[in-house]
Amino acid sequence: MKFGGTSVANLERIHNVARHVKREVDAGHEVAVVVSAMSGKTNELVAWVQDTPKVNGASSPFYDAREYDAVVASGEQVTSGLLAIALQSMGINARSWQGWQIPIRTDNAHGAARILEIDGSDIIKRMGEGQVAVVAGFQGIGPDNRLATLGRGGSDTSAVAIAAAVKADRCDIYTDVDGVYTTDPRIVPKARRMKKVSFEEMLEMASLGSKVLQVRSVELAMVHKVRTFVRSSFEDPDAPGMGDFLNPPGTLICDEEEIVEQEVVTGIAYAKDEAQISLRRVADRPGVSAAIFGPLAEAHINVDMIVQNISEDGSKTDMTFTVPSGDLPKAISVLDANKDKIGFDVAQSESGLAKVSVIGIGMRSHAGVLRRLSRHLPKNPSTSRRSPRRKSRSRS
Amino acid sequence: MKFGGTSVANLERIHNVARHVKREVDAGHEVAVVVSAMSGKTNELVAWVQDTPKVNGASSPFYDAREYDAVVASGEQVTSGLLAIALQSMGINARSWQGWQIPIRTDNAHGAARILEIDGSDIIKRMGEGQVAVVAGFQGIGPDNRLATLGRGGSDTSAVAIAAAVKADRCDIYTDVDGVYTTDPRIVPKARRMKKVSFEEMLEMASLGSKVLQVRSVELAMVHKVRTFVRSSFEDPDAPGMGDFLNPPGTLICDEEEIVEQEVVTGIAYAKDEAQISLRRVADRPGVSAAIFGPLAEAHINVDMIVQNISEDGSKTDMTFTVPSGDLPKAISVLDANKDKIGFDVAQSESGLAKVSVIGIGMRSHAGVLRRLSRHLPKNPSTSRRSPRRKSRSRS
Repeated sequence: MKFGGTSVANLERIHNVARHVKREVDAGHEVAVVVSAMSGKTNELVAWVQDTPKVNGASSPFYDAREYDAVVASGEQVTSGLLAIALQSMGINARSWQGWQIPIRTDNAHGAARILEIDGSDIIKRMGEGQVAVVAGFQGIGPDNRLATLGRGGSDTSAVAIAAAVKADRCDIYTDVDGVYTTDPRIVPKARRMKKVSFEEMLEMASLGSKVLQVRSVELAMVHKVRTFVRSSFEDPDAPGMGDFLNPPGTLICDEEEIVEQEVVTGIAYAKDEAQISLRRVADRPGVSAAIFGPLAEAHINVDMIVQNISEDGSKTDMTFTVPSGDLPKAISVLDANKDKIGFDVAQSESGLAKVSVIGIGMRSHAGVLRRLSRHLPKNPSTSRRSPRRKSRSRS
Repeated sequence: MKFGGTSVANLERIHNVARHVKREVDAGHEVAVVVSAMSGKTNELVAWVQDTPKVNGASSPFYDAREYDAVVASGEQVTSGLLAIALQSMGINARSWQGWQIPIRTDNAHGAARILEIDGSDIIKRMGEGQVAVVAGFQGIGPDNRLATLGRGGSDTSAVAIAAAVKADRCDIYTDVDGVYTTDPRIVPKARRMKKVSFEEMLEMASLGSKVLQVRSVELAMVHKVRTFVRSSFEDPDAPGMGDFLNPPGTLICDEEEIVEQEVVTGIAYAKDEAQISLRRVADRPGVSAAIFGPLAEAHINVDMIVQNISEDGSKTDMTFTVPSGDLPKAISVLDANKDKIGFDVAQSESGLAKVSVIGIGMRSHAGVLRRLSRHLPKNPSTSRRSPRRKSRSRS
């Protein structure tokens, strides 16, 4: 069971979380819980870290990622201890675990570390003895014996990784929405909650702006085949059906084998504030992509959709790609600075675009979706997506 | 160098602390720093721990001391990271250390743990390479591999213990006063700052209400002969004399051998809100002390001065002792409940008393101090103190 920052935002909500856990314990399940920091707490800690060099009048806002991690990881430490106490005061045997105590071993990429290995033996033993393990999310311990955080939203990843380590039947992500919807219900009232989504579809939805789950947690769930349930932490823990183990309210993210009827289109995701850049008459030679995208990557600009036109005369082509609108001025200046090295005629750009993605495994064997989509958009999409990572599995 | 909660209360003050550290580093010293949590932070965390069972409607305010420690220790984790960043942004090589990373090994008495052993090898090595060690105070790791805090004011103890472990020339305790005074300067304007105080004298002053240093830290300094300097963190770090290594502004607490001219009276300490209890006509037999003080100890009542009259007829005596005023009603009811077992005539009590203690190694070879003292008190002290622990070293 994983509970995010809004679910543990204060003592009353931690109490509510404890009731959810108690329901499962009372039903006879062995439970591990992963918690985030109280909502707002991580932002406060990050602000302190970022402001410290400024207060010192440092010329650069540099800070050491290892010290960032030491400061920021403290938020989850607090909630894990408080939830353990809340459970104990309900008569439930519970114990908090920090990342370094389990241990959750990560790589050395402080601030955005990846989990390498979890030794689940201790918590499996304790869970077998009836003790609930309350695990601080978002963190582990690096090879340098220092705290390492997983990056924002990393508690979802912690939860899936712990579920895999303890060989859980399921990983329940309790959040402030009650499941995964076909699209954003704030925009499309007809949007409906799905009962099941495949890992691949969820990965597309997660990468494309749906904020229900962090992308890496879905990747991890897919690799380790961790059945993951997205459900609400704000419903009454004892409402009818909440304790239904096989069919709780929410959305199951699972292997596509489990999904008998595969929809052609499962969901629609969107992202706003995109900008598009077209480099005209780029030399069509090996290495030109690296010349363009290398400097952008170094400037930490996240390039998304890339389309290269077929060159007409075999020597010059057009390259079009998207970046977040906020990065457009920086991207243009990086490209201008590298104009000679890349070799292009002119860089054209347009901002204020939106990206709409249509997701569904069924599209593999179904044509005509893009045509239907374009009929429903006010204007035709000016670029179509090429997803190098998973273009053979789903299409958008 | 140790900095308490008021010295690291916000980013500006952490910056000021970093300047104190920089001054010492620039002077060529190898430095380890111990920090407390931001002032108010520990109280907030403790309140959360205590309120959690209440929110849950638990019948008792019980909470697990191990989880208390996990929550409360997070405060020092934050300040150690922030100070490391502040130092780094001034160009100083620095690294934070949590209790479990060094490690500082404690016993299992969570919430009031004692330090058993510190492995200083890692930080000594780093300090030799020019790196400042920024250590989270107030905490270590217990034999159960869980965070253990040292009890309130424990950061002083951490500092002295770290100083002993790294074989420091000196332990500088930076605090919100600029040294140890002959008595409370808010009451006696003529009070003056002492240049040197012996460990024994400081221990008496610390036990007797002077809040400059925590008692256990002075005991530890005495055992390990750690020369400890009490000095102000709020003075300008670069003011004249602040970097004077041999003679900085403040009070040195050291072995009495170092104090050439021993004053008859070094200082005067006081405690308010004391109450006195006299048990009349107690049977003067072995075991009667245990019968009286055992039940009081079980009720967590801290008995201070104990005076037993010489029994006149060889069978009955009077026992007089003091307790904090606030505990007087509880103490009386405990005594009444055990009246038959103890065997006394009547329990008389008086509250609203103050205790004045006169401290000085020189009293060992000097008579007449109590007579002079009593001339200066409005009324004669109604009880005189018997200090079983150190009555041979100092007298009050």
